[in-house]
Amino acid sequence: MSRIVYLNGEWLAEEEAKVSIFDRGYVFADAIYEVTCVLDGKLLDYDGHAARLKRSTKAIGIAMPTDDDTLLALHREIAARNDMTEGLIYLQVSRGNPGDRDFMFENNMTPTFSMFTQKKNVLGAATGKNGITVVTVEDLRWGRCDIKTVQLLYPSLAKMEAHEKGADDAWMVKDGFITEQTSATAYIVTQESVVVTRPLSREILPGITRATALEIAARNGFKVEERAFTVEEAKTAKEAFFTSASNFVTPVTAIDGHKIGDGKPGEISLKLRNLYIADRRANAI
Amino acid sequence: MSRIVYLNGEWLAEEEAKVSIFDRGYVFADAIYEVTCVLDGKLLDYDGHAARLKRSTKAIGIAMPTDDDTLLALHREIAARNDMTEGLIYLQVSRGNPGDRDFMFENNMTPTFSMFTQKKNVLGAATGKNGITVVTVEDLRWGRCDIKTVQLLYPSLAKMEAHEKGADDAWMVKDGFITEQTSATAYIVTQESVVVTRPLSREILPGITRATALEIAARNGFKVEERAFTVEEAKTAKEAFFTSASNFVTPVTAIDGHKIGDGKPGEISLKLRNLYIADRRANAI
Repeated sequence: MSRIVYLNGEWLAEEEAKVSIFDRGYVFADAIYEVTCVLDGKLLDYDGHAARLKRSTKAIGIAMPTDDDTLLALHREIAARNDMTEGLIYLQVSRGNPGDRDFMFENNMTPTFSMFTQKKNVLGAATGKNGITVVTVEDLRWGRCDIKTVQLLYPSLAKMEAHEKGADDAWMVKDGFITEQTSATAYIVTQESVVVTRPLSREILPGITRATALEIAARNGFKVEERAFTVEEAKTAKEAFFTSASNFVTPVTAIDGHKIGDGKPGEISLKLRNLYIADRRANAI
Repeated sequence: MSRIVYLNGEWLAEEEAKVSIFDRGYVFADAIYEVTCVLDGKLLDYDGHAARLKRSTKAIGIAMPTDDDTLLALHREIAARNDMTEGLIYLQVSRGNPGDRDFMFENNMTPTFSMFTQKKNVLGAATGKNGITVVTVEDLRWGRCDIKTVQLLYPSLAKMEAHEKGADDAWMVKDGFITEQTSATAYIVTQESVVVTRPLSREILPGITRATALEIAARNGFKVEERAFTVEEAKTAKEAFFTSASNFVTPVTAIDGHKIGDGKPGEISLKLRNLYIADRRANAI
């Protein structure tokens, strides 16, 4: 059965939802997106995603397509219309359709706003228990990875490359240090049981799940350190994991073919996953 | 009057030409484009643009949407259908619509292929005689600028920034050296009358107009040197100019508020412009 998707004020069958070939999201990758997780029919970490959407659109001067209340109502309505109690809500805001192609744009354009759902078994995903393997690739993305734009070609190609090499995903490396997973935040747990992740900068996305997971880790007595770490440190770490809105905390068991720790999902990673799920579930709206 | 545009085998009024909100060109910037100039109703440097389209699509594994003969026929037909004897033909090939959003993709996807025309006074453009001014900005683009993808948000923002600063365009700088103009190749002419432009690498687009202009310059006895040059060298150059499919050779008269030479379009730049136009016009198809 076809999903009901949202586009510029209309509810449409997914096959009917189309944007102009002149839309700046299509010809200039001039668009922002967000992905929010739905669990038990409720929104996880919604405030963080809504706040980041505002921050991203503001950073490149795209107008917000709705007010706060409408945005939240649309999230609830799209989940309800699609009978989705577990999965993702994807939203995209492009600068809009200027009617012709020009690198220059007007500052008052009406954005193109689309939303759709993807059902997904987020809670019981096998990767949550078994972990994933990663390979490293050079980070070739642009210089403003802190803005959540749709310029995702490189992460997509890197993930394909990882699969070709027999791994599940890729960790990107800049000047010898890990930046991020293709679409997630990367962490190691040192032999001293310190959870380490790269500090926020223009080189990584300010992950909503990252912020919550770090807060929950600290609140539960884990040592947390925000600093860049090398591929070698990852290879010799006690554990590794990643976080993202749709994967929560998920263990990483190997990097470039090297087992991390004993090659099984780490104890701290799995504890953090359970703590994260319990906490966010209790705070879902 | 509405243009007739081309989309996946159909000729449509421009308002009717739409792609799915799930198209990978829209959600992942997973698309390649080309712009070919039309003059006297003929295609300029067509073979170069067609060859680069093949090279770009191959580089990221997108299938070519047509065979060679059809591609040429479509270029001629779209110009004819829109009574366009002078202007541009824009074409875009995205990886297509997988029906859902996923960083992973199938290798055999059917691409989405769109084309449209833009009428433009290319031959008599005022900038061709008067030149343009540029400011420098940091080059924050991704690491594969040699592939002509639609990941054009940064060049677009840089051009907006240039206008806000009172200039016409921006020259991008990496590690102290000019890479390119936002959507064109950058050149200086030294005090010794040597035409200098950056050699091909992953950091610049292999400009079709660049290749032709360099060949024409050399053939007409100009000294040409392919090497990176600094902002300081540009400021103290005798002349500067840029090349692109829709601007041919166009003088640059100031950089960051500093006049280049006497601040007027340079003699060599204007000579090269005339040589380029005469040569390409004679070889148009």
